[in-house]
Amino acid sequence: MSEAAKTIDGWYCLHDFRLIDWTTWKMLSSDDRQTAIYEFQQFLNKLNTVHEAKEGSHAFYSIVGQKADFMLMILRPTMEELNAIETEFNKLKIAEFTIPGYSYVSVVELSNYLAGDEDPYQNPQIRARLYPELPKAKHVCFYPMDKRRQGEDNWYMLPMEERGKLMRSHGMIGRQYAGKVKQIITGSVGFDDYEWGVTLFADDVLQFKKLVYEMRFDEVSARYGEFGTFFVGNLLNDSKLEQMLQIN
Amino acid sequence: MSEAAKTIDGWYCLHDFRLIDWTTWKMLSSDDRQTAIYEFQQFLNKLNTVHEAKEGSHAFYSIVGQKADFMLMILRPTMEELNAIETEFNKLKIAEFTIPGYSYVSVVELSNYLAGDEDPYQNPQIRARLYPELPKAKHVCFYPMDKRRQGEDNWYMLPMEERGKLMRSHGMIGRQYAGKVKQIITGSVGFDDYEWGVTLFADDVLQFKKLVYEMRFDEVSARYGEFGTFFVGNLLNDSKLEQMLQIN
Amino acid sequence: MSEAAKTIDGWYCLHDFRLIDWTTWKMLSSDDRQTAIYEFQQFLNKLNTVHEAKEGSHAFYSIVGQKADFMLMILRPTMEELNAIETEFNKLKIAEFTIPGYSYVSVVELSNYLAGDEDPYQNPQIRARLYPELPKAKHVCFYPMDKRRQGEDNWYMLPMEERGKLMRSHGMIGRQYAGKVKQIITGSVGFDDYEWGVTLFADDVLQFKKLVYEMRFDEVSARYGEFGTFFVGNLLNDSKLEQMLQIN
Amino acid sequence: MSEAAKTIDGWYCLHDFRLIDWTTWKMLSSDDRQTAIYEFQQFLNKLNTVHEAKEGSHAFYSIVGQKADFMLMILRPTMEELNAIETEFNKLKIAEFTIPGYSYVSVVELSNYLAGDEDPYQNPQIRARLYPELPKAKHVCFYPMDKRRQGEDNWYMLPMEERGKLMRSHGMIGRQYAGKVKQIITGSVGFDDYEWGVTLFADDVLQFKKLVYEMRFDEVSARYGEFGTFFVGNLLNDSKLEQMLQIN
Amino acid sequence: MSEAAKTIDGWYCLHDFRLIDWTTWKMLSSDDRQTAIYEFQQFLNKLNTVHEAKEGSHAFYSIVGQKADFMLMILRPTMEELNAIETEFNKLKIAEFTIPGYSYVSVVELSNYLAGDEDPYQNPQIRARLYPELPKAKHVCFYPMDKRRQGEDNWYMLPMEERGKLMRSHGMIGRQYAGKVKQIITGSVGFDDYEWGVTLFADDVLQFKKLVYEMRFDEVSARYGEFGTFFVGNLLNDSKLEQMLQIN
Repeated sequence: MSEAAKTIDGWYCLHDFRLIDWTTWKMLSSDDRQTAIYEFQQFLNKLNTVHEAKEGSHAFYSIVGQKADFMLMILRPTMEELNAIETEFNKLKIAEFTIPGYSYVSVVELSNYLAGDEDPYQNPQIRARLYPELPKAKHVCFYPMDKRRQGEDNWYMLPMEERGKLMRSHGMIGRQYAGKVKQIITGSVGFDDYEWGVTLFADDVLQFKKLVYEMRFDEVSARYGEFGTFFVGNLLNDSKLEQMLQIN
Repeated sequence: MSEAAKTIDGWYCLHDFRLIDWTTWKMLSSDDRQTAIYEFQQFLNKLNTVHEAKEGSHAFYSIVGQKADFMLMILRPTMEELNAIETEFNKLKIAEFTIPGYSYVSVVELSNYLAGDEDPYQNPQIRARLYPELPKAKHVCFYPMDKRRQGEDNWYMLPMEERGKLMRSHGMIGRQYAGKVKQIITGSVGFDDYEWGVTLFADDVLQFKKLVYEMRFDEVSARYGEFGTFFVGNLLNDSKLEQMLQIN
Repeated sequence: MSEAAKTIDGWYCLHDFRLIDWTTWKMLSSDDRQTAIYEFQQFLNKLNTVHEAKEGSHAFYSIVGQKADFMLMILRPTMEELNAIETEFNKLKIAEFTIPGYSYVSVVELSNYLAGDEDPYQNPQIRARLYPELPKAKHVCFYPMDKRRQGEDNWYMLPMEERGKLMRSHGMIGRQYAGKVKQIITGSVGFDDYEWGVTLFADDVLQFKKLVYEMRFDEVSARYGEFGTFFVGNLLNDSKLEQMLQIN
Repeated sequence: MSEAAKTIDGWYCLHDFRLIDWTTWKMLSSDDRQTAIYEFQQFLNKLNTVHEAKEGSHAFYSIVGQKADFMLMILRPTMEELNAIETEFNKLKIAEFTIPGYSYVSVVELSNYLAGDEDPYQNPQIRARLYPELPKAKHVCFYPMDKRRQGEDNWYMLPMEERGKLMRSHGMIGRQYAGKVKQIITGSVGFDDYEWGVTLFADDVLQFKKLVYEMRFDEVSARYGEFGTFFVGNLLNDSKLEQMLQIN
Repeated sequence: MSEAAKTIDGWYCLHDFRLIDWTTWKMLSSDDRQTAIYEFQQFLNKLNTVHEAKEGSHAFYSIVGQKADFMLMILRPTMEELNAIETEFNKLKIAEFTIPGYSYVSVVELSNYLAGDEDPYQNPQIRARLYPELPKAKHVCFYPMDKRRQGEDNWYMLPMEERGKLMRSHGMIGRQYAGKVKQIITGSVGFDDYEWGVTLFADDVLQFKKLVYEMRFDEVSARYGEFGTFFVGNLLNDSKLEQMLQIN
């Protein structure tokens, strides 16, 4: 039997991708639209309060292409809170003009492949990664992924030492992008259809492509990576949200 | 020819996942909504009566993410009863405001890999597992799965002795989670698209991830497991249901 | 070149799975619903007349889970008749309250693997299997399937003698269920997406699981079987249909 | 590098599969329905005029099962004409009561595997196959297909000589069905999701099954064939169309 | 570890495929339709202005078959601009009568496999390829693709030298089509579900088939190419657009 690496886990995470139903949204009167936008902003402000109290965090981005119009990524201490925020969003007026696009349920995860033997929950640097303040980078990239279990290319049949070696080499690539790309790994085994979610933040969107492409030549991805759907998007602040939703 | 292990089978099982159509639900008058909630609770109360009479059991959970808003898992002595409950639900007012998300048809199954040679249906401990009282744990996890039949990794071509050995080792992992995770295995060969359904109950949602992740390194999952979609959720009692469905 | 086994073919077959649109069905007035049910029953009665004249046969079952609410399986001497019955159903009032779920087009098939060298169309026992009277068993199970053509596991590259030997061994399992499960094999090469449809009838629904599970360990299924979606259901007679469609 | 066989190409081809929205079709007044049917027949008559002028051809069939209600297969000298006919159909009244089911874009193709070294475009027999008059056979069968590129079974890595030999043997089977099945091969590399479309015409629908099944044991299909979805149907002439669309 | 080839990247790219909802479009009054067409043309004129200022480019084509009615391909210096154009389109009147079909997010990419060691961004020929003026060819072809990572056929495990050699040979084929087919390669690793988008332009639509088919026999495609869905279409100028959208 191969041995599972220990992971340490932080805040629970919901990625919620929504499409706008532009046809019905345009049917609303200008006043009703404004009311709906205002209510949505109040909801986002409440999320900001939690973020500032460091009791959770979130990110809010528009998405390019037809897969979604915006993504709300939420971090919270419990699954119940994620569920409650989801329901709260569904009860907003704006929600009546959105269509579910995709969602992902996971938990912030650090792998022991990369950590030492200390008690990680006492380490402030590790705590900062388990309970991260999501950055306001200009761009976001999200994709779910699996480690492959197929014929000769079966990650889960590798000896732990081999996996550790491969992951360290893989981590090297990520570290070259320090300062350019911030990476949040969330684990989703038992929670959603892939084993991990990868969320990347960068001010230069091209860095996502460079990082993911470079990693693809690394054995961990080349032989063992299975990727789900990719989303890429742009930061939505209050004025950009207003601009997106405004109908002249 | 490889030999099929004997299984023993208990109550039939329907997992029924539904999405709420929030837009039309909000269009209802407050009174009509309250009436629909009340009727739904009456329906759930009737299920409770059966549960208390030990003539069946059920579990009712909200689901995190866009795959579903709630799941009703039903155990009954016959397929006809599952069908009848499904139809009864469809005739409720609340059903007009739900959209089918996913369903799974199976039967509680114990594998002889794990049992001895006695007549299992006379064994009270086994009876308790065939006709289980589903717990009111805080969280649920459900996923369907297959044993792989692919090239060198073909479960059904292994000698029975080898399968037995592998399953015993696999079962060891599950046993380490005794008291933390309650596991209900339902068989669905001939009933639905995968061969088994796995339903896990726990008060600490992270135990689902730990258990499924640890098992993934075990040869049974690593080489032979094929997994369907995963659902994770939170217990819905009367007040949580009311809260979820209430529109201010 | 491997050699194709000769098959002999009987009545053409349409499996038609439908979901009920409960929301609009409940909107109908009680009178209009009753009229629609009556018209549907007249349509079913006409099918019964053909069945009694032995000019075709059919089976009508409710389906458990969200894949469908009912299935109508029709056997007729020509494809045109299947098409005509389909269109006739679509013109019924009840059809306006149903949503297509799945369908399968095939023809009753007997394989020479299992038959001798006589002229099979003259053999009354074989005629009874080519033009079968579908039973009124309590339960039905349907799934489509392929023989695999993948790497080392390529059914169609096996010598005919080898295929014959494997199929005889496979048939042995089926024969052990004689009296418990009635099995109708329909061929769909050139007609629909899989190569065969398997329809099973039984009074004890658990026999479907036992039969399909036992077969899965047989080399024909273990190495060469690829399965589509599974449906399981309960017999619908007049009173059960009325009960299902009645709204209080 | 393996060498691509030269192909010669004739008319462009659109297969257009549509479902009828029976519920809204029945809502039309009898007069409006009749007007829509008449307009549709005028459209089909215009296609007939082109067919008679040998400036194109088409086939019109009802489809058995839920995948489609009818299929219009169109052959024309240019892609622009296919696009124009598609748009013209979409502007018909009847189109408002249809739902797109599936479509396929390709071009009539003859492979040099089967031809000699002469200039094929000057050969009247070959011209008759590049610009074929589609027959009014009682039945049609359509499916798209690929040649496999998978591990040891990679068609495109075979030497040309080997491919030629295999295709000649494959062609032998087709030739045994001369007079029973007419086969139109259309190429779709660069045009649609599979590499070829296969359209078969026969008066005896069982010949489709026999031909496709026999071919499946031939190495070209057994090792290298990947098949898409299959459609089977019945000839629609004016009176059958009227009968199909008439509501009593 | 295998080494990633350096790429150089130009304008960001959105392919936006839309279906027309003909039923609701026909419901509009003739005047409202004309207003919507005029507004759409104004939008397209604005894109033309950017194209003429060489601050971006775009292509506008009708698509054959049911996958889409038209495709708008947009090139711009930033992801934010793509997002803004998408939103601007969604706010047009015409958008209310369209249904999303497919979209693809990428960036114009040149691979160093094909380039020398100079600073490519200073090379005017390379700049013309990074920031291309899309041609007004009569036909377009689009498909996304991956390099395979499967068993023995794993592109990303090949030594760089081997990949370079294979790509040069692959490029040879493309070069034989110079003057017949213009090819725009866009990279989408980290942006969308495949690794590349391929957009081809030609006045003779058959050249797409010839090019893609010939390439399929080249080892790069034969062993390592995985292809997504294919779209083919015809140039839409102002009068063709008017003609397409006009209802008599």
